[in-house]
Amino acid sequence: MRVLGIDPGLTRCGVGVVDVASDRSAKLVDVVVLRSPADLDTPSRLARIADGLEAILEEHRPNAVALERVFARSDVSTIMGTAQISGVAMLIAARRALPVALHTPSEVKAAITGYGRADKKQVGAMVARILGLEVVPKPADAADALALAICHAWRTGGAAGAAIADASGAGAAGRGADAAGMTPAQRAWLAAERAASVSGAARRVRE
Amino acid sequence: MRVLGIDPGLTRCGVGVVDVASDRSAKLVDVVVLRSPADLDTPSRLARIADGLEAILEEHRPNAVALERVFARSDVSTIMGTAQISGVAMLIAARRALPVALHTPSEVKAAITGYGRADKKQVGAMVARILGLEVVPKPADAADALALAICHAWRTGGAAGAAIADASGAGAAGRGADAAGMTPAQRAWLAAERAASVSGAARRVRE
Repeated sequence: MRVLGIDPGLTRCGVGVVDVASDRSAKLVDVVVLRSPADLDTPSRLARIADGLEAILEEHRPNAVALERVFARSDVSTIMGTAQISGVAMLIAARRALPVALHTPSEVKAAITGYGRADKKQVGAMVARILGLEVVPKPADAADALALAICHAWRTGGAAGAAIADASGAGAAGRGADAAGMTPAQRAWLAAERAASVSGAARRVRE
Repeated sequence: MRVLGIDPGLTRCGVGVVDVASDRSAKLVDVVVLRSPADLDTPSRLARIADGLEAILEEHRPNAVALERVFARSDVSTIMGTAQISGVAMLIAARRALPVALHTPSEVKAAITGYGRADKKQVGAMVARILGLEVVPKPADAADALALAICHAWRTGGAAGAAIADASGAGAAGRGADAAGMTPAQRAWLAAERAASVSGAARRVRE
């Protein structure tokens, strides 16, 4: 399954493409941060980012688009640009008949690190580990876009992903332990670690 | 000058097209409320509205697009859809190389009624009067879109419009009286009334 993840933003829009196998192993296809200059008017900035998004979709032909769910309670100074880019990204995906899934930052962090309040450094480190990369993708928008794409594939594909998908809403994935004393997120984290080790080892052998 | 005004919304998106002459008289070209069903997913709803917007642009070929400026402090339950539609509308305009202007609700109300806190009924009544219509355009989204288009033409074209355009920010146009004891908005309102009477009379004679 090839997923394109988007961390929406007007100044920096992270876009990551990953291939995720049914055993949850994930491979980096491409990652890029689209930018638009702050001195351009907003419509031109949106068009600039839209052009970049369409070029990446054209090149990599993903099966699905995963987008960060933006909340109205987010930082007021950036919320409008972020929401506008989200609208543009959804339109572009809809016109290509691509399914779009929204995931909250907490859902992504829980899926990737096992902890819904993980910081950017932890997310970046786990993304690098899952994809078998020697360095953490920079800037954070790039790592976040990859995390979104991996999160989406795991939540819709793998067994641990399904467990997390049952938990509704932001942060919910971290609450409530099951009979074995582990939260769904903790189980997902262990599964992710295993998948990352396998994937990383396999890549090192191939290279 | 032909202006297309957009009152952005995911459930109802008002779109009004007006021709405004240099003497500030305004003529209705078209008005429509684009709708998208709430049971569709958001990307499909955005695409539905986008298709409608593009059809209207194609049909009426306006010189400019006027869009309501959305604030992050607006109603949280609708803000995201509104911002997403705004992004989509700006992208569509930018790709047709059409200038896009944003006006706040207060600026529109001040330009149309002379009072930045006018209610929807007052705005609708003045829009009908300015355009020489016998009935107020319904629903409010339709009247608001027309008000936006007229506001934009007046603020960029006519003399009273220039006076209002000097006042910066939401609601500012209602503050501070000049030497003649009239605020810029009050002068604009009088000018609008005169323009509306002339325009309405001219239309009645023609018809």
